[in-house]
Amino acid sequence: MATITFLSDYGYSDDFVGVCHGVIASAAPDARVIDVTHRIARHDIRSGALVLARALPYMPPGIHLAVVDPGVGGPRRGVAIRCADEGRVLVGPDNGLLSPAVERFGGAVAAIDLERSPHRLEHVSATFHGRDVFAPVAAALAGGSSFSAAGDPLDVADLTALALPAARHDDGIVRAHAITIDGYGNVTLDAEPEMLADAGLAFGPDLAIDGRAAHYGRTFDDVEAGELLLYEDAFGSVAIAVNRGSAAKLLGVGLDDEIVLERT
Amino acid sequence: MATITFLSDYGYSDDFVGVCHGVIASAAPDARVIDVTHRIARHDIRSGALVLARALPYMPPGIHLAVVDPGVGGPRRGVAIRCADEGRVLVGPDNGLLSPAVERFGGAVAAIDLERSPHRLEHVSATFHGRDVFAPVAAALAGGSSFSAAGDPLDVADLTALALPAARHDDGIVRAHAITIDGYGNVTLDAEPEMLADAGLAFGPDLAIDGRAAHYGRTFDDVEAGELLLYEDAFGSVAIAVNRGSAAKLLGVGLDDEIVLERT
Amino acid sequence: MATITFLSDYGYSDDFVGVCHGVIASAAPDARVIDVTHRIARHDIRSGALVLARALPYMPPGIHLAVVDPGVGGPRRGVAIRCADEGRVLVGPDNGLLSPAVERFGGAVAAIDLERSPHRLEHVSATFHGRDVFAPVAAALAGGSSFSAAGDPLDVADLTALALPAARHDDGIVRAHAITIDGYGNVTLDAEPEMLADAGLAFGPDLAIDGRAAHYGRTFDDVEAGELLLYEDAFGSVAIAVNRGSAAKLLGVGLDDEIVLERT
Repeated sequence: MATITFLSDYGYSDDFVGVCHGVIASAAPDARVIDVTHRIARHDIRSGALVLARALPYMPPGIHLAVVDPGVGGPRRGVAIRCADEGRVLVGPDNGLLSPAVERFGGAVAAIDLERSPHRLEHVSATFHGRDVFAPVAAALAGGSSFSAAGDPLDVADLTALALPAARHDDGIVRAHAITIDGYGNVTLDAEPEMLADAGLAFGPDLAIDGRAAHYGRTFDDVEAGELLLYEDAFGSVAIAVNRGSAAKLLGVGLDDEIVLERT
Repeated sequence: MATITFLSDYGYSDDFVGVCHGVIASAAPDARVIDVTHRIARHDIRSGALVLARALPYMPPGIHLAVVDPGVGGPRRGVAIRCADEGRVLVGPDNGLLSPAVERFGGAVAAIDLERSPHRLEHVSATFHGRDVFAPVAAALAGGSSFSAAGDPLDVADLTALALPAARHDDGIVRAHAITIDGYGNVTLDAEPEMLADAGLAFGPDLAIDGRAAHYGRTFDDVEAGELLLYEDAFGSVAIAVNRGSAAKLLGVGLDDEIVLERT
Repeated sequence: MATITFLSDYGYSDDFVGVCHGVIASAAPDARVIDVTHRIARHDIRSGALVLARALPYMPPGIHLAVVDPGVGGPRRGVAIRCADEGRVLVGPDNGLLSPAVERFGGAVAAIDLERSPHRLEHVSATFHGRDVFAPVAAALAGGSSFSAAGDPLDVADLTALALPAARHDDGIVRAHAITIDGYGNVTLDAEPEMLADAGLAFGPDLAIDGRAAHYGRTFDDVEAGELLLYEDAFGSVAIAVNRGSAAKLLGVGLDDEIVLERT
């Protein structure tokens, strides 16, 4: 019996998460369900996608249910996707939510359109496909039902990719983007540590961020209060912060804005 | 080993929910526990009762623990109730919280007063019967302890029913009531789809709601912004809304107020 | 397979709790995990310690993971501690968080420094030891790995104790302290019911609290609105309240302030 992980934007105020757990337990009584989080900001596909991609490597391989679905009831597809690595299967809306996680596990090797899945509940509502489509499909797959029997085959080339900015580097200058900004004004960038290394900006020496002097730090307290800091966050992403301050405010950057890192 | 579902108004700020889980795991180590929700508004018996009744049909049959209990420590009874359908057993305070769910499963066929239950913890506090009475009773029943041994027999006719308004219809006019109003001003009514059909108001044709023109819609976007809409919500209840607005505000209705639906 | 309980200050906004569950499920697929609470106030070691100590007696004996860790990445130790009673094992930072629970279970009989634990994840981040150190150690111990193999032996005399005020009594006067104050202004004291009994202040007769007349009550409603009340809370702690008012405000007390109880 495979493990099911579950991420959504349902929050905890209602019984939505609980009802999905009930549907899973009814169809797959022995499945273990791990809640990744249900506090993705309402309808924020991109945040859901980024959290899913960073969290799943810590989850045992299995069925990975994810629902952030502003287009529910409309023409967007519901899908199950099998990844190249570890046989992981993702289930959810085909709106880009699943694509960074799929990439992290080697890309899609097969996909199923769930529009006519035999696992769907008898009555499918217009607004709650987490309960009526995605949870029962995840439960059936966890219980051993074959992947190909979950619905109609779908060309993996037709899957929706998440539009994300792309960092690039040239002559010791990295042009990255703010891809998440947290409540403290800490900013995660789309540049990988390897790209920084290629640009001669490996963690260690001082650098300039948008023209301002900045230091590398392992923790915030490695620099003085008010100083700008380049660090690797707990999920291995390149990030910038101001010790006891807000990097987003200091630099005046918003989501997707370009941030230039260069040697000094 | 039966599944236990658990609904309460304890919230997540404290260790109350966790401690009840601990009590259950101590007495019934192999029981699976599904949290329905713990964010029922504090002491709101009616909301708890309505959420419980709509959620349980999606939960596997078993022991259904529910605690919204403003009268804890006072004269209200604690009870276990066996339903006619699927052998479902509800455990909680006898204050109306359980009654809509009991009705949904065919009514009560047997009841037990838990005042002197042998399953209660050794020391019963004045204020935390979820931990001291209801969770250990639910765990004992899930573990196979007999229903009749959970306490003293109680006449099902003595169980407390929840006072709810009742919709009625006559000559193509349905007089319903607002039974829940959510944060967006969407209003759930106590009229069943069948009653609307009997009154010639089946989903489809236009109608008048409190004298205003309204349309049937499958989703909010089926009507223009600002227009009034009759729809079936994700749990099958008849509801009204204003697309990108508040039906409660437009109609000036509060909880339990009468709402008149008629043909135009 | 032992049960793991899990308390933290991670909250539910992020995937931190979910990721720790994933790490545990990866290393110990059959372990049951019970969440005590994850809403300890951020970095509030003392509240975490007090909630942990009061909640664990309701949890089945096993591995008790707790993370409130403002010093993560700094010199504070990570530890596993075996208690005298029931073989319970606590895992977390050695900053006082675990010490009241350890005392409640008979004190520490053995301790392990986790700095070089073989169970740690391959890459240990600077800021997320819940995921990288404590969860994998808890999972390994739950799965049957030997306690002594979890890291390097540590003298239990070197463990960090939580600094707490200590109530004392003399000639019928109890000098206690406010150790928690909740949102309603109810105040928990550090005096045990036994100390009150020794001072002739057993629950029942009237008394004076900081010079004001007070009554014993089983519930708030046992005294008039606005009156001061001594009661035993649901976890067996001595507490004071004002019915429909705030005891903290009436007495002008803050955390750790002395509160004098005496016979009248």
